Formats: sequence, structure tokens, C-alpha cells
Amino acid sequence: MEFSSKLLERAVNEMSQLPGIGKRTALRLVLHMLKQPKEQIMSLSNALQSMRNDIKFCKSCYNISDVDLCEICSNPNRDETIICVVEDVRDVMAIENTSSFKGLYHVLGGKISPMDGIGPHDLNIQSLVDKVKAGIVNELIFALSSTMEGDTTNFYIFKQIQDYKINVSTIARGISVGDELEYADEITLGRSIVNRIPFEATLKL
Amino acid sequence: MEFSSKLLERAVNEMSQLPGIGKRTALRLVLHMLKQPKEQIMSLSNALQSMRNDIKFCKSCYNISDVDLCEICSNPNRDETIICVVEDVRDVMAIENTSSFKGLYHVLGGKISPMDGIGPHDLNIQSLVDKVKAGIVNELIFALSSTMEGDTTNFYIFKQIQDYKINVSTIARGISVGDELEYADEITLGRSIVNRIPFEATLKL
Repeated sequence: MEFSSKLLERAVNEMSQLPGIGKRTALRLVLHMLKQPKEQIMSLSNALQSMRNDIKFCKSCYNISDVDLCEICSNPNRDETIICVVEDVRDVMAIENTSSFKGLYHVLGGKISPMDGIGPHDLNIQSLVDKVKAGIVNELIFALSSTMEGDTTNFYIFKQIQDYKINVSTIARGISVGDELEYADEITLGRSIVNRIPFEATLKL
Repeated sequence: MEFSSKLLERAVNEMSQLPGIGKRTALRLVLHMLKQPKEQIMSLSNALQSMRNDIKFCKSCYNISDVDLCEICSNPNRDETIICVVEDVRDVMAIENTSSFKGLYHVLGGKISPMDGIGPHDLNIQSLVDKVKAGIVNELIFALSSTMEGDTTNFYIFKQIQDYKINVSTIARGISVGDELEYADEITLGRSIVNRIPFEATLKL
């Protein structure tokens, strides 16, 4: 791509570093920005800078936060004996949206993935094990994605904590509410039959 | 969407102002930025700021440029008697990539579109008419997209300059090189037959 301006070229190159944004999309976005008021671009770039520079991670659960201890961890109404283990911040947001979980979270920051060079020590696993050792936790809920990396991570954590008497569960896999059985994949359908639940339990939902 | 951090929320809101970027994509991009070195985010936001603040538009053709008169307009090897009229900077880049055009450009900055509140006076049309009046131009090539807005814009410009003795052409519409006839839409196929060209002309390409 030949650019008529170095400034334009630099902006496009920087934008196209973002995941899922190629050169063409970057050019479209940058040309859009050129048509916007200057204040809006200042506001965008300031928001990005101050986010990158000033954002904190909760010292307990590693969720993104503006303060040292995030709102969830510092909320006295939440059950600190149950910890839901998730991959990243988006998973916390997704589970919080359901209003179905009143415990705390632990954000690993990724999954163990040797292919990407991510080992257990690159993730917030030790601090989770320490929480379990401290004896406050009754239950861990694994809510990682069900990929090979997710399963590996679950298993690695499980091995570290299996000597402590706590419940370890994973979120249920099954057919989505409202989905047709005939279109479900076999593995999910198979699991939903193996892990069937008493009908009476559904009456309380 | 509930955010655990105001800084994160602000960054996501700013990013999701960009066209084609929703809240989820913005969150994904912003979380990616959080994992990048601070220098990279500084570099991105500086590139956007300096682009927005310092970029110039060529005073003759309105192409994006770092100097007052763009490289194309100031190139003595280009034929200033032929002007290709395009919608925006991307069209200039696309045509330049073909190396098939040695004239100059005129970037309108959009198309006449009453639905979007864009009238002739919001576009760089008067300066184009002035160039024609000045008498240097021999030919105008309309290279706008073939939509109703593009056709309206072509016609509006044509009415302004029809009293001057210059050639006015539009780029050829037809079947793409390498495409199968059976999959072409009727309008394009129809036009490619009506506007057929002497076979001998193709031997020179």
C-alpha cells in the first residue's frame, strides 16, 4: 500500500497492529478519524493512554480495577468461600451479567498453552493455590473454555490443590437454552446426557 | 455491559465510536492493548494525535499530504490536462496502484447524498469547476462508485462544466478480468455488451 503521507502511513501501521485489524480496516478507521473533530481524537488517545498507564489489577483476584482491591473482592455481601476461576476479565463480566454467582473470582490471565509459550508461571496460579492453602476456600469452580488448553489448566490447578479438602467443580456443559437438539454437536449432546440433572432441580430455576 | 473500572469503560466507549467497532470488539482491542508494552500504546495514540493535528490536504487536488502541494500534483511528469475525479483518498491509492493513470486527481471528499445531508457545497466541487474554467483541463474522468449518489454527483458536475469544450468520460464498467460470465449480474453484463470495445484495442494492453 502506497501512502501519500507519512503521518497517515504511521497511523495506519499503528492501528493495524491491533488484533483482527488489517491494513484496509486500519485505513478506513483512520480516514474516519480525519473527518472527526480534533477533540474526539484527543479524547480517544487520552483514554487509551490513561487506561494503559493508570489501570490497576485487583491484588486479590487480578480483575481489572481502579483501586487496589476490586469492588467484588471488597463487597462484604459476597461469599468468599467460593471462587470461580476464569481466564480473563471478559469472563468475569459475562458471569456477573447473569447475576447467578455470589462468590469471588480469580482471573488467571490466560490458559496454559505451550504452543504460545505460556506456562503455569506466566499465569496467576500460585496465588490461587495460596488462597486454597490459607483455608478460607470451600469450593473452586473452573469456568475456563473447554479447549485442550483450558482442560490442561484445570488439571494443573487440580493437581496442586487436590490434597486440600475442598470441592472442585466445573461449569455445566450442555445444550444452550432454546437450542434444537438436532443441531447440537455430538460431544455437547453426549455430555448433556451423561451429566443429566434431576428434573426437580430445574423447577427451582 | 458492566465494567469493573472507569478507565476501562472510558477506553471501550471511545473505541466503540469508530465505525464498525461495537462494544465487544472495542473491549477485545482494549484488553489486548493492556497486555502490550506501554510504549506501544503511547506510540499508537501519538500517531493518531499527530495525524489528526498535522495532516494536510493538497491545496490543488485535496488528496491527503504532508506538504501543501501533494507529490502527484507537484510531479512534472504527470499530465495536468487529464483529471480523474474520485470520492476519497482510498480511490487515489487504488488507482495509483494500477500504474495505469498518469494524470492528476481531484478528491471530492464524498458524494452528493441528501439522505446523509451532504450537498454539493460540502464537497470540493467548486474548485474542480474552477480548474475547468481556467482552461488547462482537456479531459475529466469520473471514477465515482456507480450508486445513485455517485451518478447524481457525476451529473451535477457535468451540468456545471458542460459549456466548456472538454472531454468527459467515466471509467469502464464490465466483467472483471478472470470472472465467469454466468455469475455476473445482468446490469454489469448488459453494460459490458453495450460498451463493447474494438478487439484490436485489447491487443495493445
